Amino acid sequence: MSKISPSIESVAGFRAAGVHAGLKKDGALDFALIVSEADCVAAGVFTRNKVKAAPVLLDMERLANDAESIRAVATNTISANACTGAIGLQNARATSDLVAEALDIAAEQVLVMSTGVIGTHLPMDKIARGVDLSSANLGDDWRAAAAAIMTTDTRPKLGSVRVESDSGAYTLAGMVKGAGMIAPNMATMLSVIVTDAAISAEAAGEALRSATQESFNRIVVDGDTSTNDTVLLLANGGSGVAPATDQELAEFQTALTDLCRYLAQEVVRDGEGVTKFVTLDIINADSEAAAERIGQTIGASVLTKSAFYGSDANWGRIVAAAGRAGTAFNPDSTSLWVAAGESLPDDQRGLRIFSGGMPTDYQEADAAAIMAEPSITFTLDCGMGAGCATIWTCDISHDYISINGDYRS
Amino acid sequence: MSKISPSIESVAGFRAAGVHAGLKKDGALDFALIVSEADCVAAGVFTRNKVKAAPVLLDMERLANDAESIRAVATNTISANACTGAIGLQNARATSDLVAEALDIAAEQVLVMSTGVIGTHLPMDKIARGVDLSSANLGDDWRAAAAAIMTTDTRPKLGSVRVESDSGAYTLAGMVKGAGMIAPNMATMLSVIVTDAAISAEAAGEALRSATQESFNRIVVDGDTSTNDTVLLLANGGSGVAPATDQELAEFQTALTDLCRYLAQEVVRDGEGVTKFVTLDIINADSEAAAERIGQTIGASVLTKSAFYGSDANWGRIVAAAGRAGTAFNPDSTSLWVAAGESLPDDQRGLRIFSGGMPTDYQEADAAAIMAEPSITFTLDCGMGAGCATIWTCDISHDYISINGDYRS
Repeated sequence: MSKISPSIESVAGFRAAGVHAGLKKDGALDFALIVSEADCVAAGVFTRNKVKAAPVLLDMERLANDAESIRAVATNTISANACTGAIGLQNARATSDLVAEALDIAAEQVLVMSTGVIGTHLPMDKIARGVDLSSANLGDDWRAAAAAIMTTDTRPKLGSVRVESDSGAYTLAGMVKGAGMIAPNMATMLSVIVTDAAISAEAAGEALRSATQESFNRIVVDGDTSTNDTVLLLANGGSGVAPATDQELAEFQTALTDLCRYLAQEVVRDGEGVTKFVTLDIINADSEAAAERIGQTIGASVLTKSAFYGSDANWGRIVAAAGRAGTAFNPDSTSLWVAAGESLPDDQRGLRIFSGGMPTDYQEADAAAIMAEPSITFTLDCGMGAGCATIWTCDISHDYISINGDYRS
Repeated sequence: MSKISPSIESVAGFRAAGVHAGLKKDGALDFALIVSEADCVAAGVFTRNKVKAAPVLLDMERLANDAESIRAVATNTISANACTGAIGLQNARATSDLVAEALDIAAEQVLVMSTGVIGTHLPMDKIARGVDLSSANLGDDWRAAAAAIMTTDTRPKLGSVRVESDSGAYTLAGMVKGAGMIAPNMATMLSVIVTDAAISAEAAGEALRSATQESFNRIVVDGDTSTNDTVLLLANGGSGVAPATDQELAEFQTALTDLCRYLAQEVVRDGEGVTKFVTLDIINADSEAAAERIGQTIGASVLTKSAFYGSDANWGRIVAAAGRAGTAFNPDSTSLWVAAGESLPDDQRGLRIFSGGMPTDYQEADAAAIMAEPSITFTLDCGMGAGCATIWTCDISHDYISINGDYRS
């Protein structure tokens, strides 16, 4: 496990800014810009929703055309620029034109991200103001940049990791926004990871896909998947270090995956109305895919999430959710443990509450004491094969309903 | 459309009872028995959850062995008798033994259903009391029987339809319980339909599967699917009428489907914490299966349901849910209308709010006025093919979370 710092000091050759462009009514930061002084190798993972926002379509096109000369990422809040048709695409391009002009680079070197309400056009005058202000304020205030991409997030989410390799040291750093609408396959989640290591476009793409699969794709807040999901990786080589040997590439992968996992967990912790952080360790399932599917089904079950909120060790709902996941599953071969905390050692699974198709003779008071904790881990041993996956999820509270019943007003 | 009455007067050769066996703490009705004086042809549709409750396993076994001599259906509340292992199966059999003894029939002629908390054993002393009381009180009080299978339901749900065929008149009548944990493919939903028509076992099975597919499988309360779902059809021929011609069989099918649809909609209306009844008419999808999948994905989206609750015409969430349904979908060919009420004529779809990949220039106040109504219909024209399906769903409210955060205590 890499040691992740919850902040970003500096990443060689990168600068960032978060400014108030007038998009948010309350004067909060609402527009972010990240710039590299040298061309970056870049990779992206995007929403699988058939309804893709304009910035997603534009970034996909640009990375397909040339993923080795990216210089900047601009992100706006308030409008998701999704379901906005030809005007939306035009506005996404116009945003990148403004950034390119301000930085004296080509528009094709700019990626854009948007988050906010679906179906409203970008207010281009405010976007222009955001570009002006942010390009004039570039520096090392990554926290401001992370704050400037927030929607219903309650706090900026960022982190970094320093890797000491045989060829030298480099940094990976990233920020993320999440909150509601977070599900398997991402959802309105935007994340940018930057590194001053040098890496090939092919290796960057593979590393990002692998890291995403084991992090952002393994969290569930509400089961929805958005039109705007984007995770970007930019590598500018500013450290002078180029991981090249198998061991160095593996180190890079581990650091990237650990950073993404940290950011993904931060998204769950800061989910809308969340009061509990729940780890679902699914082990010995038919396959890794089955383990992931079972964990995601449990994590997305509103009934299960309501029970988490009520601190109810309702294992019946967990087992029933596993049974409808559409994978091989047999309650008679299944055991379920619950424990306080997260990242438990294998030999500390806690209280066994279900085994051999039936509840054990555990005491409800013992289970209740565990369920009252802010972090809970369930270990579900399916007793079928060797497939394992860990899913991070949360409860659903009254506040979630309040926030989402009235989001647009 | 058949004319469904919201009550049951009598069905030739059938009697019913609902009693207080001491299962519920508050003295409410908690055990139901339905008995036919003659052998019934019977059919069942059961949960697809891999975790099947003991009563489901027993009924499946009995219908597979002999579906032409069923005489009784006994239903208990409080315990679902699911995840109860060998003891659970033994208790399900013991329940049927008690019923058989009280009615002087064979145990194999008895079907059983259970609903309540998963993982608790049937309290057999109270079950015995329920059998004693109900078998001694058989009559035409179907409302009491329907009340006796309720859990968090707020009211008994029952209905009947009289069919005048060329061969004579007969009745179809049914009751249902639902409330939470209702999803595509049923969920803790128990329903019994009885008819005094005579019909073959094969025709009964086909008719019930077809009716279920267009009713109980097209409702979504919370997206969960339970361990106990059961829909039973019992036909005793007590009316002396045997639908036999193609026309008569079609009449039977229509009446059965309409009755099931009525009962299914009643389940949605009485869902936990429900404040809005929402009809999703998905038209011109790639296929009927695609239309159903799109409707179910929209109906199960917590974000969409929160918006319904908040009376927010958040079409963006609806279109985004359609986009992640895993079917062919293209927002550019899609239109969305919203209207107050349900069962609208095709030419009264209401206010068009989305078209050609973008919102229309509708007035938010007009949409808000519609969304404030207790019944709302969305028509989603996918512009792709000829696949249509109607899904009935509801909002998710603070009360849902309260009810399910603390269900077991």
